[in-house]
Amino acid sequence: MHILITGAAGMIGRKLTSRLVADGALAGKPIEKLTLLDVSAPQRPDRVAAGVETIAANIADPAAARAAIGRRPDVIFHLAAIVSAEAELDFEKGMHVNLDGSRALFEAVRAAGDGYRPRLVFSSSIAVFGAPFPPSIPDDFALTPLTSYGTQKAMIELLLADHTRRGFLDGVGIRLPNIVVRPGKPNKAASGFFSSIIREPLNGEEAVLPVDESVRNWHASPRAAVSFLIHAAGLDGNALGPRINLTMPGICCTVAEQIAALRRIAGDKVASRIRRAPDPLIARIVAGWPGRFDARRALNLGFAAEASFEEIIRVHIEDELGGRIA
Amino acid sequence: MHILITGAAGMIGRKLTSRLVADGALAGKPIEKLTLLDVSAPQRPDRVAAGVETIAANIADPAAARAAIGRRPDVIFHLAAIVSAEAELDFEKGMHVNLDGSRALFEAVRAAGDGYRPRLVFSSSIAVFGAPFPPSIPDDFALTPLTSYGTQKAMIELLLADHTRRGFLDGVGIRLPNIVVRPGKPNKAASGFFSSIIREPLNGEEAVLPVDESVRNWHASPRAAVSFLIHAAGLDGNALGPRINLTMPGICCTVAEQIAALRRIAGDKVASRIRRAPDPLIARIVAGWPGRFDARRALNLGFAAEASFEEIIRVHIEDELGGRIA
Repeated sequence: MHILITGAAGMIGRKLTSRLVADGALAGKPIEKLTLLDVSAPQRPDRVAAGVETIAANIADPAAARAAIGRRPDVIFHLAAIVSAEAELDFEKGMHVNLDGSRALFEAVRAAGDGYRPRLVFSSSIAVFGAPFPPSIPDDFALTPLTSYGTQKAMIELLLADHTRRGFLDGVGIRLPNIVVRPGKPNKAASGFFSSIIREPLNGEEAVLPVDESVRNWHASPRAAVSFLIHAAGLDGNALGPRINLTMPGICCTVAEQIAALRRIAGDKVASRIRRAPDPLIARIVAGWPGRFDARRALNLGFAAEASFEEIIRVHIEDELGGRIA
Repeated sequence: MHILITGAAGMIGRKLTSRLVADGALAGKPIEKLTLLDVSAPQRPDRVAAGVETIAANIADPAAARAAIGRRPDVIFHLAAIVSAEAELDFEKGMHVNLDGSRALFEAVRAAGDGYRPRLVFSSSIAVFGAPFPPSIPDDFALTPLTSYGTQKAMIELLLADHTRRGFLDGVGIRLPNIVVRPGKPNKAASGFFSSIIREPLNGEEAVLPVDESVRNWHASPRAAVSFLIHAAGLDGNALGPRINLTMPGICCTVAEQIAALRRIAGDKVASRIRRAPDPLIARIVAGWPGRFDARRALNLGFAAEASFEEIIRVHIEDELGGRIA
């Protein structure tokens, strides 16, 4: 089994790599080769049995896409993307990397033309949806994104489904929930506070909450995101049918419920490290985001997320803090 | 008022041109200039008060798109497309003309960059939807096309909405129903029989029906299609909101109901000119097509289709047969 990961140097890409190295197998088959691609060469994992190749390349360059595909990976995890805020600030860059990059990758697979038909798992996002929403968003709800990032993800979903229908490749698109708790430093993403208000207090630092506590979102942990990708890689395409893009399960909760969960796990002192500083711009952006899904198809296909927001916090403490709270 | 029509030599393009010439105005403003673009130069209309320019060009050529947009049309009707059957047979041509052509056109408008923000009316199609369907398809139903043509139309809808949201242009996408009765000769489109079984019998000729009479579709006349385009050109963008792509109203009826309407209008002798010759391939293709919509948003915004299939037949007799039946 040969696996290619695009965007391998990103947060999810690194966690996926570690998990694959730890498992040593994917979908019941031993991993013989791992190709890790990103714009800057991804780090080589330690203690790995499989052959590892790292590539510094931009998949929006058709020659780079062809070179990566020329190695005939059996499974492709396509994670490479310009993130939401950057795609909104720089329209051309978002279109180039997100849309043209994905198309170049799909075209490279199609151009092989010798019956090569790899499983391609595409990390889409719930940003393909845009307000107004019903109380719970069903699997057959329209894609009406309100960002360029969401638009590009939705266009790629459609393209992936058509390439799959025509037999050019074997695609599965998974719409990731808001991923919390993101490790690392606070960033300027509008969604950053969802992680900050848990991560910083657990680390003995102050966090800023820019929105009302009634704000609702759809959450899963980085560990769950990796498990979705791995489950998608082994999914039976026939069970999936032509609607290959799936909304992932998650936890629907408000900011107030996030804070209450933090208090139950870490106590009042930790929870008191959250400072309220309303930011109308962030509040307006977040108001267009979806809060609750009925992710029935994904659940029926065996995708599983955390059962509570407390579990998401515990995953963070286990995976990032060595099980200890500051 | 300067109007640009892409795909002006096609059936809808020619009818739209005739209607605009007859009206002499659009959205309450006199038409001063008409630019008619197609891969082969469209015919010049007779007796036209406005200045007319005909252009033979492929809008998928960015230079051609820039040249057409350099004339700063106030309203653009973007009809140019490779049709469904051809886009399925020739994947690359469909992607190039339908997707890249539309993108080149939108990019040419965006590149103007001097506050130029024309109304762009895009002719989409109910082919953006794919089975399985609920009994009546709501306005917020997912786009899950089962053809490359439908995929390309859905991707352009998303792109048009994002360009509109960002203020690059002022777009409206209209999803046309199955257009019957198409004038002219029978063609090889899988949908051809919906028109043939009305057109040929009225013309004293035999028609072939390749599917069961229980097959249901969503119909509007060519005259209604032109009225949708004209209504979309004058629509208030604020009333539309961010969901700028609209399913058009139509008539839901079965083939049996089509034939019954023909019999009521033209008698048993005419209706007896339909020969049953089941074709499993066409039956399979047509089974994936939508049959009934709840086109509430379009109706609320003032779009109007025919009230019955008889009215669709009468429109054909008036517009194509000089009011007479053979």
